[in-house]
Order: sequence, then C-alpha cells, then structure tokens
Amino acid sequence: MPLDAPAGAEPEDALGLVRDAAVLVEGERVAWCGPRAAAPDVGAPVEDLGGAVVLPGLVDCHTHLVWAGDRTRDFEARLRGATYAEIARAGGGIRLTVRAVREASAEELADLAAPRLDALLAQGVTTVEVKSGYGLSLEHELAQLEAVALLGERRPARLVATCLAAHIVPDEHKERRGDYVRLVTDGILPAVAARGLASAADVFCDEGAFTLAEAREILTAAGRLGLRTRVHGEQLTGTGVATLAAELGAASVDHLEHVDAAGIAAMARAGTVAVLLPGATTFLADPALPPVKALRAAGVPMAVATDANPGSSPTTHLWLMAQLACVSYGLMPHEALRAVTVVGARALGLADAGVGRIVVGGAADLVATDAPGWRHLLYGLGDNPARRVWIGGREL
Amino acid sequence: MPLDAPAGAEPEDALGLVRDAAVLVEGERVAWCGPRAAAPDVGAPVEDLGGAVVLPGLVDCHTHLVWAGDRTRDFEARLRGATYAEIARAGGGIRLTVRAVREASAEELADLAAPRLDALLAQGVTTVEVKSGYGLSLEHELAQLEAVALLGERRPARLVATCLAAHIVPDEHKERRGDYVRLVTDGILPAVAARGLASAADVFCDEGAFTLAEAREILTAAGRLGLRTRVHGEQLTGTGVATLAAELGAASVDHLEHVDAAGIAAMARAGTVAVLLPGATTFLADPALPPVKALRAAGVPMAVATDANPGSSPTTHLWLMAQLACVSYGLMPHEALRAVTVVGARALGLADAGVGRIVVGGAADLVATDAPGWRHLLYGLGDNPARRVWIGGREL
Repeated sequence: MPLDAPAGAEPEDALGLVRDAAVLVEGERVAWCGPRAAAPDVGAPVEDLGGAVVLPGLVDCHTHLVWAGDRTRDFEARLRGATYAEIARAGGGIRLTVRAVREASAEELADLAAPRLDALLAQGVTTVEVKSGYGLSLEHELAQLEAVALLGERRPARLVATCLAAHIVPDEHKERRGDYVRLVTDGILPAVAARGLASAADVFCDEGAFTLAEAREILTAAGRLGLRTRVHGEQLTGTGVATLAAELGAASVDHLEHVDAAGIAAMARAGTVAVLLPGATTFLADPALPPVKALRAAGVPMAVATDANPGSSPTTHLWLMAQLACVSYGLMPHEALRAVTVVGARALGLADAGVGRIVVGGAADLVATDAPGWRHLLYGLGDNPARRVWIGGREL
Repeated sequence: MPLDAPAGAEPEDALGLVRDAAVLVEGERVAWCGPRAAAPDVGAPVEDLGGAVVLPGLVDCHTHLVWAGDRTRDFEARLRGATYAEIARAGGGIRLTVRAVREASAEELADLAAPRLDALLAQGVTTVEVKSGYGLSLEHELAQLEAVALLGERRPARLVATCLAAHIVPDEHKERRGDYVRLVTDGILPAVAARGLASAADVFCDEGAFTLAEAREILTAAGRLGLRTRVHGEQLTGTGVATLAAELGAASVDHLEHVDAAGIAAMARAGTVAVLLPGATTFLADPALPPVKALRAAGVPMAVATDANPGSSPTTHLWLMAQLACVSYGLMPHEALRAVTVVGARALGLADAGVGRIVVGGAADLVATDAPGWRHLLYGLGDNPARRVWIGGREL
C-alpha cells in the first residue's frame, strides 16, 4: 500500500499490488518484499501461501472497544421510535454506559473487551485504536485507559490508546461545564500524558457534546502536552470543527456527515485524515452520509473504521465496514482497502513506520485471505476473507 | 417459535421463549421440549449447554446460491456510476452469470456453491431454499437444479429447490417472448416436476423481466403441476403482482419495495408471506424500502432472507440480513428472529412440519449461541452468534 495514491491512479497501483510476490520476514519486521522471482535466496524456511491474496494487517483506527453495560433495550426503544432524549430520560443512552464503566474495575473492563478484540484479530485486524470516554472523571478515565493497557498485555494486537475524556459533559458537571473542560485540560489529559496511558486526545464537538470554543481549548491543551489530536465532528450537525481541527494540526476528523466545503478544503490543505464510520450511519439509519465525492475531489485521505461502541455502532466487523463504505458511501473497493490499512495507520501516525503497509523495515503484520483475487475482498457483504494472520512476524 | 404471533404480542411470547429449558431429541426429531424442571427422566445422555440461548435452526427461504462467473467488475462499474443498461452492454449483468452457468456442469456448479452453503451452515442456517434461474433453457435449468440435488447429497442442510426458469427472458428468445413463456409452462416446469427436482416455481414479475399477464400464465401452469408458487415482485416498480400472487395462492411475494395498499391487503387476506431482502436494498443502495409498518399493521407475515446472488445481493450472512432488517427496515428484533426461522419456514411450506420451530415431532434442527440473552442476538452488526449446530439431531 503506497503512502499516497494520486487521484485517478489505477486501482492496482493505488494498492501497490505485486503479483506472485514474496515477503521476507526477519524478527518482527519485513526484511524484503517484491516479486518472488527477484527474492534473495536466504536459505530460511519458505512458507508457500498457495497464491493467496496477502494484505498488510488491517487497521481499525477508531473504536470505543472498552465498555460495560447493556444497551440492547435502548436499541429496541429506538426501533419503536423513541428519541434520544426519551431514551436518556428512561435511564439509557451514553450515561448508562458511563455508569456501568465507572462501576467496573480495569480488570473487568479488559475482560469485557477481550472477545471484541478477538473478533477483530480473527479478521486480520492487527492494529486497533481504543478510546476512553466512558469514565469522564480522572479516576475512571485512567481506569478505562488502564484496561486498554491490560488488553495489550493479554493480546498480541498493536493497541493505540486515545483519551476521549471530552466525550460528553458528565452529569455532575452539567451546571458548570467550564469546570469539566478545565478538569480535562488541567487534570485528566496531563495525568494521562504523564502516565503514558494514551498517545492521543480526542474531542466530540457537536450538539449535546462540546462547543467549538471548548474543543479549541481542549485540542490546544492536548497539543501542548505532546498528544496527537483527533476530533469526532460534523456528525449530528455542522459546527465548523473540521476547519478548526485542520488548522490546529489534528490527525483526523471522524464522522463528517455534515462537513462543509471550507472544512473539506482545510482538511485537504493540512493532510487531515477523514475517518468514515459506516457502522454508525447504518445502525442509526442516518440519511446524512459523508460527502465522499467532495472529499475525494479535494484529495482528503479517507480511512474507514468500526467506531465499535454499544450505542451507535455495535460492531466489530471491519471488513463489513469497508464493504458498507463501498455500497453505502460510494468508495471504490481499492479506496476502501486503503482506508482500512495505510490510511487508517496514517490517522494513528503509524503509516510512516510501516504499519498498514508491507514495506521493508515495516511491521511484519500480514493477513492471508481466501479471496480468489483482490477484487473479491469487499464483494461479499458480511464475509471475513482472513484465513491466516501474523503480527510482528508471529502467526496468531 | 409459535406459528403465529398476534399483533402486539410481547416479544418473548412471540418467540415462545422458555427459560431454563430442555429439549429431548429422539432420532431426528424433538420428542419433548419445555422447562427443564418438567423434563421427563429418560435416562438418556444429557448435554448441558450452560444456559446458552438455543434457537431452531435458521431458515434462509430465498437464495440463488448456485451460480458461476465473476461479477466483481460489474460491482465496480456500478460504484463508478454505470447504469444497469451500460453494464449489460459491456457484457456484464445477469447475462454474464447465465453464460457462465450454462458453461458449467452440475458437478462444477455444486462445487462452487458448497462453500456458500458452508458459510450458511456455520451460522446455524439449517434449511436453505435454492433457486435455479441462470440456466433459462430446459437443459441448463435441469442442470442447475441437479446441482442443488448434488449439494444436498454433500451437505446435511435441508435444501428446498425452486425452479426460477421465469427469471428473465433469455437473449435467444428476446424477439419471441411468448415462445419462452410456453417453454417454461409446457417444457421446463413439467420436466422439473416430473423429475422431482423442485417443489416450487418462482416468477420475476417486473420491468425487464416478466409482465403481469405472463406471470399469471406461469403461476397458473405451476399450480396445475402441483408446484408451490412464489413471486419476485414489486421490487423495481409496482406491478400489482402482489395482488395477483395472493389471489393465485402463492406462498410468498419477495422484495416488495413498491407494493401498494391493495397488494398488502390481498396478501394479508391470503396469508401470503412477505419475504424481505435487505441484502439487495443495501448492496444496491436502493432508497425504496419495503413498507414494513403497513405490512405489520395488515398482519402480513414477514420473513427475511439473504437473496444470495452474485449481482444484487452477494452475501451469505443471514444474521446480518436480520440485523439490517431491524436497523434499515424497522423490524423489531423478535420479528426479525421469527423472520429467519418460523416465517421463513412458512414461505417454504415447512412450518407446519416443525421446521423453523422447536416443537414436539418437529425437526431436531437447533443452534446454540454465545449471546448473553436473546436480545443480543441481532445487536452486533456482522456478528454470527452461532456456536453449535444440529440438523436432525446430529451435530455438525
């Protein structure tokens, strides 16, 4: 997967497809890759994958994988026509998840998240971003990020933790929003950075979450702490946060159903990644879809992720998300394959280091599929074509 | 799963949920089922499923599982904006599949279909309807149905074959449509019935397929031959075929995006099953959805199926279809669970015999899941909760 694919590149060039290829793995890294006929003779054991289509390990660059509580009643209430506000009044919604997460220990949270991570690993998803954002206090945000660290000890996946303390304003601060913003900027984010529990901070800037001004404060504070920054934005309403995020050097803006032309232009100028989340628009039956044609025309790199979370995108099927990005959003299959590999890695700041790509010196994270050709990878709705998965040269 | 669920029934009543239940299997059939505390002591070996949610084996009542050829280029052309007509002119579309199926032997067709059936079996789908309709000549329709018979010898699934010779008018009859209709009514259907290769006949009545008058001829002929009848209808345009099908005693009308009030009323009167196919509307990004509220209000039984086919619904994920029926069409989870079990069986005429249900004397087709409760079965988009599957009392 080349880092960049110029507009109008042929699909196989955009993918960097090599036919009859070989990959030489030394330790955890790729030592050589290219056409098999040109492979160096190293005398090492050779594994014949029988012509399988091999991809870099997939990257799920936006998840809320660590959660507790049961939101299935919310799901049914919504199907019966209940509004978000009605569900919240009945004790459901994100506050149900916050209560359940606060009641759980980091160990318990890791136990709950492990099968979700296993589902991703079984699809060849080798790099997974995981956000906090259901703790919403110093103690509980740290516990949620500790659960991510525990998960990383238990499973071989590359986990990238993001602090989303700025998910919503918790109930106890409803009347003093400013206090919570200061707790995030002066308390939670510094503590998270000092402990090395996350490499990035995220802000949800939208109606019902944080304002543009609050997002600016939080993103600026996070940047000062050396954290990479990301934004949930332009999802429910257009706020202009895409422009702000691009100007502040955020790595990505995620959702984007309501992004405007200025936001797209700013993202294109800054190289900000657009993270598209078809799980949320599908699960919520949202008629507003991200403007893929405009993003493509402007040259904004597009990633696709699961947004795995119990309220708006209860899914751990990254292949399905890439398939839905094609059928529902109009991505081409080669764009969607880049979206769940190299562009996802770019949103995490890992593409240059060789994640989401098969390059010399890069991570030997590989997935061998049973697809008869790359064009079949995203053709079967709900298929998981992964058959064998390696992380850092080790097969799962 | 009770045969009927009255409007407004509580979800657990509509499902016939029994907590802490036991099922006694003798040979291929269920000999007893009910609360474990009331189970007869038979001295037979007892298997403790550890509180797993157990369902009747799922029923996929509408598939085109037997096909050959590669339609991935059509998929990409469509994503680039090509129309159906443009794709057809470029050598793609359904005629590509017809050419490929005609070139394949029944053995080859069965080989190609086997992994698709395996994907369904791994989800606990134990009864699968399979249509012909890519042969479109006596010789090739018989070969496609022979492939279904071969598949049934190779796999333990309950297969129900349907002759869809009236899928489209093949190119060689384009100028003499009437000749093809007569070939279907007087040649293909009688041969299929005589050989016992299918128990039902299906007609695609829509723009580009068969007219209402042609559908009437074909359905009437099929009925005379003792074949059950079904209709692909009201998908691309409203034709009134739902009313005709109900009046002629068809078992189901499938698709229904454009069905009108008269059609719904006629189906309700006749007990015709509405088979909803979310794979097709999702894959084709069709903004027209079946009128679930009106179907529900009228009391039309609703089934959900994969429509597995290479052109408009390349999927073998029946759970995903049930999930999409909830999030995209607004079925309630308990309705969607009935839709892929007892109501699917009803469309196939098998519900009375105990398929798609767990009843004394019925088939011991069971699926044990890893869901923490029935409400979780359709909650995870792309999940397959099946863990153990039995067909006729034998575990796969």
